[in-house]
Amino acid sequence: MKLLFVHADYVNYQVKERAKFAEEISHDRKAGGMRNPLIVFACVEKVDGQTNVVDGAVGEIKNIASKVKTRNITLFPFAHLSEDLASPFCAVELLTQVETKLKENGFLVIRVPFGWYKAFEFKSKGHPLAVLSRSIPRKANLAPLSLQVGCSPHVK
Amino acid sequence: MKLLFVHADYVNYQVKERAKFAEEISHDRKAGGMRNPLIVFACVEKVDGQTNVVDGAVGEIKNIASKVKTRNITLFPFAHLSEDLASPFCAVELLTQVETKLKENGFLVIRVPFGWYKAFEFKSKGHPLAVLSRSIPRKANLAPLSLQVGCSPHVK
Repeated sequence: MKLLFVHADYVNYQVKERAKFAEEISHDRKAGGMRNPLIVFACVEKVDGQTNVVDGAVGEIKNIASKVKTRNITLFPFAHLSEDLASPFCAVELLTQVETKLKENGFLVIRVPFGWYKAFEFKSKGHPLAVLSRSIPRKANLAPLSLQVGCSPHVK
Repeated sequence: MKLLFVHADYVNYQVKERAKFAEEISHDRKAGGMRNPLIVFACVEKVDGQTNVVDGAVGEIKNIASKVKTRNITLFPFAHLSEDLASPFCAVELLTQVETKLKENGFLVIRVPFGWYKAFEFKSKGHPLAVLSRSIPRKANLAPLSLQVGCSPHVK
C-alpha cells in the first residue's frame, strides 16, 4: 500500500461522476470536508491482500497524526501512486478496514468514496512534516492473494 | 520521470523554509499562483539523466494540456512519486529544461522552487481527465548517468 500524507488547513471534496468501478454511496457521502485534516491519499496494491498491511497502514497513520497533532483523518483513495493496483473490491475492503480501525482508535475519519471522479480542494500547511509518503512494508513470501485474510477470492 | 497531473481551478504556493537542498531563488519566486492550471507534480528519477526524458515529459504535458484545454502550466517538484530519486542538481537541471521547452512552445509556466517546504493550495476540477499520472518511458540500455546528456557529472 502506498500512502501520501498531506497535513492541511482544510480539505473538501464533491463527487462528480461515476468511474468504471464506483462504490455505491449514500447521499451524505457525495460531498464532505474537514478542518485540520491529515489527508491520507491511499493506493492499495495487488500484493496488499493481507491483514497486516491494514495494521501497518493504521500504525503509520497514527504515528504521523501524532507528530502533526491532529485527530482528523481524510482517507482518500488515490490510484495514481502505483502501477500495480489491487482489484477495486479489494481496495474498498482494505480501505474500509483502515477506516474502521482508525475510528476504533478514536479518530474522526472521512473515507472519500472509491471509484468516483471528484472535485477536491485543500491547502497544505507547508511545515517540514506536511507532505510525507510511505510504502507499507510487505512480507517477502506472500501467500497467493486468494488464500490471504482481508480480501475476497475475487481479488485479481 | 514520474508525473502527476491535476487540472485545477487555481493553484497557489508560498515557500516556508529551506529543505536540505534548496534551490536559490529570487524574491519573486517565493510565492506564486495561476488560474486554470495544469499542475504537473514532477519527480525526477535516477535514470532520467538523458535528454529524451525531457522531450518525453514535454510531449506528455503538451498532450494533456491540449486535452484539458489550458496553456497554463505549474511545474511542481514533488519527490514523493518515486523511491529512486535523481540528485537535486539533476532534478533542478531537468525541470528547468522542461520549463524552457514549454515556454518555447508558448505555454505560460510557473516552475515552483525545488528543495523548499511550501504551503500550497489548489482545487482539482473533478472531470475524468482532471487527475492523471504518467511514467515517462526509459530506454532499456541506459549509458552511465555521467556520460549522458542533460545532467552534470555530479549526478549520483
